[in-house]
Amino acid sequence: MTTATPPDSASTNHQFRLASRPVGMVTAENFDYTEEPVGEPADGELLVKVLYVSLDPAMRGWMNEGRSYIPPVGIGEVMRAGGVGVVAASKHPGFAVGSHVSGTFGVQEYAISDGKGVIAVDPDLAPLPTYLGVLGMPGMTAYFGLLDVGKAQAGDTVVVSGAAGAVGMTVGQIAKIKGCRVVGIAGGTQKCEYIVRELGFDAAIDYKSEDVKKALRTHCPDGVDVYFDNVGGEILDAALTRLARGARIAICGAISQYNATSAPAGPSNYLSLLVNRASMTGFVVFDYASRYAEATKEMAGWLTSGQLHAREDVVAGLETFPDTLLRLFRGENTGKLVLKVADA
Amino acid sequence: MTTATPPDSASTNHQFRLASRPVGMVTAENFDYTEEPVGEPADGELLVKVLYVSLDPAMRGWMNEGRSYIPPVGIGEVMRAGGVGVVAASKHPGFAVGSHVSGTFGVQEYAISDGKGVIAVDPDLAPLPTYLGVLGMPGMTAYFGLLDVGKAQAGDTVVVSGAAGAVGMTVGQIAKIKGCRVVGIAGGTQKCEYIVRELGFDAAIDYKSEDVKKALRTHCPDGVDVYFDNVGGEILDAALTRLARGARIAICGAISQYNATSAPAGPSNYLSLLVNRASMTGFVVFDYASRYAEATKEMAGWLTSGQLHAREDVVAGLETFPDTLLRLFRGENTGKLVLKVADA
Repeated sequence: MTTATPPDSASTNHQFRLASRPVGMVTAENFDYTEEPVGEPADGELLVKVLYVSLDPAMRGWMNEGRSYIPPVGIGEVMRAGGVGVVAASKHPGFAVGSHVSGTFGVQEYAISDGKGVIAVDPDLAPLPTYLGVLGMPGMTAYFGLLDVGKAQAGDTVVVSGAAGAVGMTVGQIAKIKGCRVVGIAGGTQKCEYIVRELGFDAAIDYKSEDVKKALRTHCPDGVDVYFDNVGGEILDAALTRLARGARIAICGAISQYNATSAPAGPSNYLSLLVNRASMTGFVVFDYASRYAEATKEMAGWLTSGQLHAREDVVAGLETFPDTLLRLFRGENTGKLVLKVADA
Repeated sequence: MTTATPPDSASTNHQFRLASRPVGMVTAENFDYTEEPVGEPADGELLVKVLYVSLDPAMRGWMNEGRSYIPPVGIGEVMRAGGVGVVAASKHPGFAVGSHVSGTFGVQEYAISDGKGVIAVDPDLAPLPTYLGVLGMPGMTAYFGLLDVGKAQAGDTVVVSGAAGAVGMTVGQIAKIKGCRVVGIAGGTQKCEYIVRELGFDAAIDYKSEDVKKALRTHCPDGVDVYFDNVGGEILDAALTRLARGARIAICGAISQYNATSAPAGPSNYLSLLVNRASMTGFVVFDYASRYAEATKEMAGWLTSGQLHAREDVVAGLETFPDTLLRLFRGENTGKLVLKVADA
């Protein structure tokens, strides 16, 4: 075993573990802040020092009991999270000490991994947090959701909700690159200005101050060809009223509903699918794993050429995790929300 | 102008015209029973003596104001309906007097038509009412909805609601012919026995006496690959809980919601689409007009070979129209509901 920046054998791994399943909004009480000695990798394993932890809407779903696309996090287990780190020790032939990697490392300072789902990242190509955003799961989600599920094509009108979030901002930018007209729905003036001025969206709708249905009529006079939904609830219902014939709705998530205590409101305008011969399709980004490399290459090219902008909202300190996660559900982040755990 | 069975120049055409738009359940008061002299076709037109009028769930939608896939019936206009009749007089080169035709002739005894959308039917191949059922719009709806929208394939588990209705009974039978496992949802013991014993469905769920969600768990242990929805509401929501991965929901209609006075309930379990990478797609049969001939040929072959059973629920008398239409929304018909207007 070789060690670059050896964790002192006495050094401690701080972790957030799931203490209880939330009812309604997640709270700090749903987590235990624990510590244990940093482990040592066995043969075929590597030890990762986590530098950045990814905070994602999907984490709320992972905290629930019951059947979903991925098993729930067990009570007492380290909270599941994506992350970027540096290999601190390795008994895995595929990962050299000192190299940077991304993977599902959990909300903790150190992770032991068997290398499954761990991929090398290049800090010279893009800043590390970007591998949790545009070049990470949110980027992949945007890319495949828009192009494969939504089948967006030049000339289409694309509407995306959660437009200033990690996925939404990427969806809108890719759609612009592909020659679509893009309307983003976001909460607040700042976010709306950001997506139009900095990211080049054609229009923004502030759901906090505007009538979304009316605004969609104004900004999508020929209807909506692709609606990429991150939020669910009333905004999905409003989008359904403006579908163009043959429209595709990509169901990526429903952040407005994740913390609801009652059954989420179903989209009461769903019969618009019938009238407009439209479809609503759910997807899970993991299904596209075999094509991540292809998408990452294209996205990295756009980043380099300046056509695609990355933006991360970085909050320092593992210990801020519960509070920072709440910022996500309050819609307080612009761009990819990331927790900075360590410098290097 | 040649006339086979010339309508006496003094003969009268009885009609049902839309008197008012229903609020909630349609009532007899929404129609006026009127009469006028039978007209004479102008050049390029034909006069059809209507023999059978088709009663369809979609008629309820046509009575509403507002944008849909087809303009609403105007107040004072003859109520729109499909029908089968005999050509009584013709100044149209494509239609000979005495030949049988189907088309949108309205709820009346005689119709003048320019021939658009009118197609010849052969009473020797199948009884005339069958051209309003299995060989008519319901049959086309079932065929394209199941195979094109639902993409049903051998080995799939197919669930259909409104399973004893004109569309549903055809969906289930085609699915069986194609090698699927078929579960029908219908109201009442008689209908359930009919679809299993007479039509060969693998199982039936009586939504009036059973817990649909539970019954779907029993009858679809591997999940539902195709759900063909005619009813909407709670049954759609129950079906969403049982989707197999990659499932397709074909949205054909929502008869449970057509007479609702408030906004229809949306399917609150729609996030099952995400978890299961499933899709929900609306369709309108008219879009497949260019392929009706192809489908009719295949369906007629199955009828002849005895693989496909037609069943019509025939009620005599144009004057019974409003009451008979209500039977449809009460779920009292088994098979295709048809009004018999005249003998020949």
